[in-house]
Amino acid sequence: LVSSDRVIGTDVYGVSDEAIGQIDHLLIEKVSGKIAYAIMNFGGFLGLAHKYYPIPWTALKYDTGWVAIGLALPKANYAMLQSSAMIWWKIATWETRTHQHYGVPPYWGA
Amino acid sequence: LVSSDRVIGTDVYGVSDEAIGQIDHLLIEKVSGKIAYAIMNFGGFLGLAHKYYPIPWTALKYDTGWVAIGLALPKANYAMLQSSAMIWWKIATWETRTHQHYGVPPYWGA
Repeated sequence: LVSSDRVIGTDVYGVSDEAIGQIDHLLIEKVSGKIAYAIMNFGGFLGLAHKYYPIPWTALKYDTGWVAIGLALPKANYAMLQSSAMIWWKIATWETRTHQHYGVPPYWGA
Repeated sequence: LVSSDRVIGTDVYGVSDEAIGQIDHLLIEKVSGKIAYAIMNFGGFLGLAHKYYPIPWTALKYDTGWVAIGLALPKANYAMLQSSAMIWWKIATWETRTHQHYGVPPYWGA
């Protein structure tokens, strides 16, 4: 088991090991207690200050010490991330497409 | 979905609606992303300052606003909680017995 204290605030890295943000908070399915998304704060990276981007929990990869979370995030998608960070909750199909993008099963078990 | 920001810091109430502590952090199953326990801080209640007590996520009950978490925690068990808070991770059967105590299924799907 890992503490939320160790997850929140953890750096997120892109494919070239460059830091692209930090985990700001988690989105939890209330009844099941399953974490749906880790919400990343771009933290000024690429000028995306104070922008949040949801990453499916199952798309996160951990190092052995649970300290760093590495994310295979193609650079070509940064522009997509920028727009998604602003409007993702307004798009009905966003959740399905995002899990397909990362190749991970949806948290809602569909 | 509910944010970890709204869960952490939330008051926990006993059966008589008395505040008994606050959610301090969460323990997460790393691979599945399932929250196993919400860790309550007694916060000085009954002189149990800085004592932590793990509550199975599925044993928590929420009000409609997600702001308060009420826990049906029999007063007779406070002494048990005190000892559990100190040594629970050392007792092999604690997790099984605790989930049985609350009448909730174990997070590990056994």
